[in-house]
Amino acid sequence: RSLSTSARKSLTVGLIPADGIGREVIPAARDAILAVQTELPPVSFVDLLAGWDTFTRTGTALPAETVKTLKEECDCALFGSVSSPSRKVAGYSSPIVALRKELDLYANIRPVRSVSADPSKPPTTDLIVVRENTECLYVKDEKLTTGEHGKEARAIRLITERASTRIGRIAFELAKARPRKLLTIIHKSNVLSVTDGLFRESVRAVPPASNGAFDDVTIEEQLVDSAVYRLFREPQIYDVMVAPNLYGDIISDAAAALVGSLGVIPSINAGDNFVMGEPVHGSAPDIAGKGIANPIASIRSAALMLRHLGYASPADKIDKAVNDTLAPGKVLTADLGGSSSTQEVTGHVMKLIQA
Amino acid sequence: RSLSTSARKSLTVGLIPADGIGREVIPAARDAILAVQTELPPVSFVDLLAGWDTFTRTGTALPAETVKTLKEECDCALFGSVSSPSRKVAGYSSPIVALRKELDLYANIRPVRSVSADPSKPPTTDLIVVRENTECLYVKDEKLTTGEHGKEARAIRLITERASTRIGRIAFELAKARPRKLLTIIHKSNVLSVTDGLFRESVRAVPPASNGAFDDVTIEEQLVDSAVYRLFREPQIYDVMVAPNLYGDIISDAAAALVGSLGVIPSINAGDNFVMGEPVHGSAPDIAGKGIANPIASIRSAALMLRHLGYASPADKIDKAVNDTLAPGKVLTADLGGSSSTQEVTGHVMKLIQA
Ligand SMILES: CC(C)[C@H](C(=O)O)[C@@H](O)C(=O)O
Ligand SMILES: CC(C)[C@H](C(=O)O)[C@@H](O)C(=O)O
Repeated sequence: RSLSTSARKSLTVGLIPADGIGREVIPAARDAILAVQTELPPVSFVDLLAGWDTFTRTGTALPAETVKTLKEECDCALFGSVSSPSRKVAGYSSPIVALRKELDLYANIRPVRSVSADPSKPPTTDLIVVRENTECLYVKDEKLTTGEHGKEARAIRLITERASTRIGRIAFELAKARPRKLLTIIHKSNVLSVTDGLFRESVRAVPPASNGAFDDVTIEEQLVDSAVYRLFREPQIYDVMVAPNLYGDIISDAAAALVGSLGVIPSINAGDNFVMGEPVHGSAPDIAGKGIANPIASIRSAALMLRHLGYASPADKIDKAVNDTLAPGKVLTADLGGSSSTQEVTGHVMKLIQA
Repeated sequence: RSLSTSARKSLTVGLIPADGIGREVIPAARDAILAVQTELPPVSFVDLLAGWDTFTRTGTALPAETVKTLKEECDCALFGSVSSPSRKVAGYSSPIVALRKELDLYANIRPVRSVSADPSKPPTTDLIVVRENTECLYVKDEKLTTGEHGKEARAIRLITERASTRIGRIAFELAKARPRKLLTIIHKSNVLSVTDGLFRESVRAVPPASNGAFDDVTIEEQLVDSAVYRLFREPQIYDVMVAPNLYGDIISDAAAALVGSLGVIPSINAGDNFVMGEPVHGSAPDIAGKGIANPIASIRSAALMLRHLGYASPADKIDKAVNDTLAPGKVLTADLGGSSSTQEVTGHVMKLIQA
């Protein structure tokens, strides 16, 4: 799936910090990549604009220049987080949703794993949420009309065989590569028998079409409401979860709650030709600018992105340094109960990478 | 909102156990009503059919007779739980979704409260999920077409000003009656600016249209993904939560996970002229028929239904007996870590009601 690493003579990374704490944590991810650069082709970075702040200054949340540069000059990118206005603002539309569509980054991959101070104990939560990233209600095809009893709004929820099949394939590949080889399909087909029915059937049709490649993967199913319930009660039952866009959004936040903080959950938005790392957390306006945001989610997103590009060894180094920072529980930001700054945590991780 | 109790000369309760453990727990709810009948007008029960089992035997999951009897003879009803086929089955459609629509039971009210063995400590979770019950993706307006790349399925998500306003009013009434008077509106308007935007604005428009009746209610907002996250991290921040249908479905299961078991969470489906109690749990085919299902959710649903009908004192009696059963933690079903049967728990609650 990853492009061949040997063919790559250089690695150009687009940096899109966007809003709020995105501006504080994306530099940490950049530092992590620099810390492992001896194992990579020559790396360069391009700073790119997007977000609410960009909208208020330029009238667009995703300048055409940003998309053009990503497509023409970058091999990959790191996206921070975006603030959204509290009311509908004409012309404003979420740049992260638009980027996923523009670059056809159809797979949103979100590993959630608890870190235990006692390495002899297996993590209670160790799962990957594989979220379809281009359709469902995120097609944003909405209409407002006026009926007999006032305003009526309608949104289209689109589920296609093509998108469900390709996200299904990614999910099976990830499940196959893990020790438990378990894939749980999340849906709500007791109500949405046509759309969620198509999602479920398309995912289930992947193994029969794959020449036995996935015969060793166990398939389970769960309704989204009960999946969230069970996620909290018995997270250990999950290995890889595959879900349509909106359920995946909710489930990955739910899973994040299990492991201490959204501040440690990375993701990549992956397509066949591009990959973009993105911390799962939001722009956190309440703590933005204070230097106390957790950089771990962004640093891990950089590692996940490098791994997806085929650079497993530098990705392992970053991940190990992160785990060796988290497990002793001494250098932590406030969201994890510590009092270290973004800088201190980043510095500690970098020191461990270089050790 | 409740019909006047004094005008009621009798109380006819429709009983729809439907599938699985519904058949074991609805009789417990019936017993609870009988146990407080001296405080009610003469009570009678009507047994009614619905569900997957009914579908396999009669070809319809919700016989016209059931709806007719509910409309013409019943003051209220108790619904158990329904099994759904694992694949789409032609002609089958969820009877609970249909009943909510048929009877215009637009408010799904789900109180979630932790029970502490130490009554001096406040419960860490004490909230009510107020779920819009008639629209959103539950209008089940779905279409399957074939496009260039295979099958395409589309569902309509409908949000109207009318339905959002009326559920908003119920939520404000509930919030106003509670000590904290806090209402959190759940939405995803950073993506669904039109549909969720209309939901949010319609709920927010309730106080200005209510002659100051709700001026003392504090309004907050939360995106659905982060609401689920925060529900697990800091459940005490919520008081009353109001949500469109699907988010409400997920959020109420998430909240249930906080208090030990879905087996203790009651709900009512309420309209202007009818109310139907319903345990939030499903039909649990894995334990059905074993006599070990938790009857508490159903018993509490009966109390919630009586309270909604205006019978606060018998409802209080049932709730107190339930709490006095749960708090000592001795007579509990397996889902709560005990080993008592459905019968034993029901018997214990009945004994406490009559004490
Ligand atoms: C910011 C928002 C549009 C986004 C989403 O819903 O996808 C975020 O919640 C996420 O999970 O990446
Ligand atoms: C059985 C199903 C249709 C139902 C729903 O989604 O409303 C259930 O999950 C509930 O919460 O009552």
